[in-house]
Amino acid sequence: MSHYAARISAMEGEVQKLKVLTESLVNPGIVSFAGGAPGKEAYPFDQLREIAQEVFRPGPMGYESMKYGSSIGVTELREEIRDKLLAPRGLSVKLENIMVTAGGIQPMNLLSQLYLDPGDSILVETPSFVHTSMIFKMFQANFVPCAMDDDGLVMEDVEEKIQKHHPKFIYTVPTFQNPTGVTMSLERRKRLAQLAAQYDVVVLEDDPYREIRYSGETLPYIKSFDTSGNVILANSFSKIFSPGARLGYIVAEPEIIDKLCNVKLGTDTCTNTVTQCLCAEFFRKGYYPDHLRRLCDLYRSRRDALLRAIDASFPEGTKHTLPDGGYYAWVELPEGLNASAMKGEVAEKLNLCYGDGAIFFSEGTPAGSGCNCMRLNFSGLDEETIDTYIRKLGAFFCEKLEEASK
Amino acid sequence: MSHYAARISAMEGEVQKLKVLTESLVNPGIVSFAGGAPGKEAYPFDQLREIAQEVFRPGPMGYESMKYGSSIGVTELREEIRDKLLAPRGLSVKLENIMVTAGGIQPMNLLSQLYLDPGDSILVETPSFVHTSMIFKMFQANFVPCAMDDDGLVMEDVEEKIQKHHPKFIYTVPTFQNPTGVTMSLERRKRLAQLAAQYDVVVLEDDPYREIRYSGETLPYIKSFDTSGNVILANSFSKIFSPGARLGYIVAEPEIIDKLCNVKLGTDTCTNTVTQCLCAEFFRKGYYPDHLRRLCDLYRSRRDALLRAIDASFPEGTKHTLPDGGYYAWVELPEGLNASAMKGEVAEKLNLCYGDGAIFFSEGTPAGSGCNCMRLNFSGLDEETIDTYIRKLGAFFCEKLEEASK
Repeated sequence: MSHYAARISAMEGEVQKLKVLTESLVNPGIVSFAGGAPGKEAYPFDQLREIAQEVFRPGPMGYESMKYGSSIGVTELREEIRDKLLAPRGLSVKLENIMVTAGGIQPMNLLSQLYLDPGDSILVETPSFVHTSMIFKMFQANFVPCAMDDDGLVMEDVEEKIQKHHPKFIYTVPTFQNPTGVTMSLERRKRLAQLAAQYDVVVLEDDPYREIRYSGETLPYIKSFDTSGNVILANSFSKIFSPGARLGYIVAEPEIIDKLCNVKLGTDTCTNTVTQCLCAEFFRKGYYPDHLRRLCDLYRSRRDALLRAIDASFPEGTKHTLPDGGYYAWVELPEGLNASAMKGEVAEKLNLCYGDGAIFFSEGTPAGSGCNCMRLNFSGLDEETIDTYIRKLGAFFCEKLEEASK
Repeated sequence: MSHYAARISAMEGEVQKLKVLTESLVNPGIVSFAGGAPGKEAYPFDQLREIAQEVFRPGPMGYESMKYGSSIGVTELREEIRDKLLAPRGLSVKLENIMVTAGGIQPMNLLSQLYLDPGDSILVETPSFVHTSMIFKMFQANFVPCAMDDDGLVMEDVEEKIQKHHPKFIYTVPTFQNPTGVTMSLERRKRLAQLAAQYDVVVLEDDPYREIRYSGETLPYIKSFDTSGNVILANSFSKIFSPGARLGYIVAEPEIIDKLCNVKLGTDTCTNTVTQCLCAEFFRKGYYPDHLRRLCDLYRSRRDALLRAIDASFPEGTKHTLPDGGYYAWVELPEGLNASAMKGEVAEKLNLCYGDGAIFFSEGTPAGSGCNCMRLNFSGLDEETIDTYIRKLGAFFCEKLEEASK
């Protein structure tokens, strides 16, 4: 057999970390807090049946849905993105600034194709999203982990590391961050856009959770403070429409969009036009606001159930984030408890799995980072299941801690 | 602005060639023989409306269509591929040998990710499909063009170039080749599989047109003669279902599929499950055989109209292929006519465009190769339009030749 390319061994470590999450998703026998998928109550089936009857017919929209699309995406969907998702959140852009992608992960692949040569440095959050880390490793990048606190990335640390490492880009999930649920403050958003201009470095703003907000005020996109064209926004329809539709988008300067379209041609020609047309119609018909309200109500209750059960049952000294939105809470167990080490026993005894905190710490962080941490997803399970299983997990940890202190 | 990666300048030349084709597709004011899209009469709208009503509902198939899929693809679609597309054509494989991709172009991207380091050599046909050439250049490969005749790739030339260049893989479109329409003979298919084993080199068999046959006998896949695991088959649903659905597949050894799934995770997570489920139902319900018959009848008449009009109107000394299937005829104009040079004038005067032959000749072929050639697509236009415009084109060429001989 022929030898594989160098990137294949470079990505192997991150692939193994990611598989900890993805394998839990395909084991239907286990109650999983490890995933990051919408609840199955969240899909707009009724609207889709109606829209499919209208779209799948000979006529302009029907042909558009069936034929090869342009690599920049279906015009009608890009118009909806501009008018219903960006403009209402204070980001005013033109159609030529928007391209559609195959889901919210593909932007990171396309931008890596565009910018990364082997050995290039990128600044990442600590902890950071393991799936995008895996992509950056596929492009043989070096990670420079930056500090975070309750207001997101710490800008002094970011600036110091820009000066030292001259990164190709800075990767951030500013709203309800994956994995921690933390949101970057307004001041830091402004500052990060300034740094992008000052040091001529690309900021990659990955913002798939922003619409799923349960409490607090919506914050502007970092992109809305961009004066240099160096801030690139990536977003997704997976959390607000359907992951299976594989729709996302990139907002950037036309020159960058143009290059990304070439890379897209070399990746998969174009994003599937069937779901682009279905999704465009979903927004055009005005179904989105009610749908989003329904999603937020659904997930707010689940978040509350999760935090309540943690507070009621986890050992004293446990810390957790208080996410205003998104899909995850981040839990730090008290000293003496190793979540990474216990996950096998938990799966076996409690029939439950969680997002092992350690996998979100990239190369460049101290060994053992995050092993007392967990990412707990609350979007995919109903309140009763959350309450029952989190309390079991809490009792298990309390027992372990007691054993350890003997 | 940050500097782009090295691959971006490496691919630029092929991008410009490809745009000659893609730009003609998005100009609705011109009659295009340059494209490679199905006719708009070819889409199964009635069946899709029916299937959408059944799939888009709470229930196993509905959830499957909406959620994140596995990177290997939806099981039900992979079963249909195995049972309705591969087995009836003599290729018996297991489910673990099949992964679904986002269209028929993505396999070349994923396989390049898996195998190609910058500077690696690959053997290509002469002429070769410009879109995949562009992908290989994105991965900074070197092309080694191999000779073709009416039976496809010339095996003596292939063997010599394997020995000399130690390529990572050999890329071929064996059935109704793009751009020539030529089909590789049975003996050469066997021989190519032998060479793959003997020299331990990967053969990438890209076969999107095989189902669209108008005359002659179906030939076995090269993959069906594979004894070493070195033959990898890529195929597409674009020509038999819908390009907009972005569905294709790869057939390979499980070890290779496993690696490709990792690369797929780093590209777009999974192929969209909405169209995977719609397509699986289309095949499961038995709609495919009648649909395929309808397509072949539609395109056979169009092929005949094209060849008739060429024979009736093009200058003496014109040669063209006689494709038994697929989407294209390849035309070689008599000496003194330069199709590349005339395409601007043709577009302006006749409101017509064709596939400029020169763009299908990769680096490594002599300068000026293919400039007297054209790829003419017949799938996308009705017979009357084909007849009218091809005769206009023929008259134009006759006039030009007469002028030149004065």
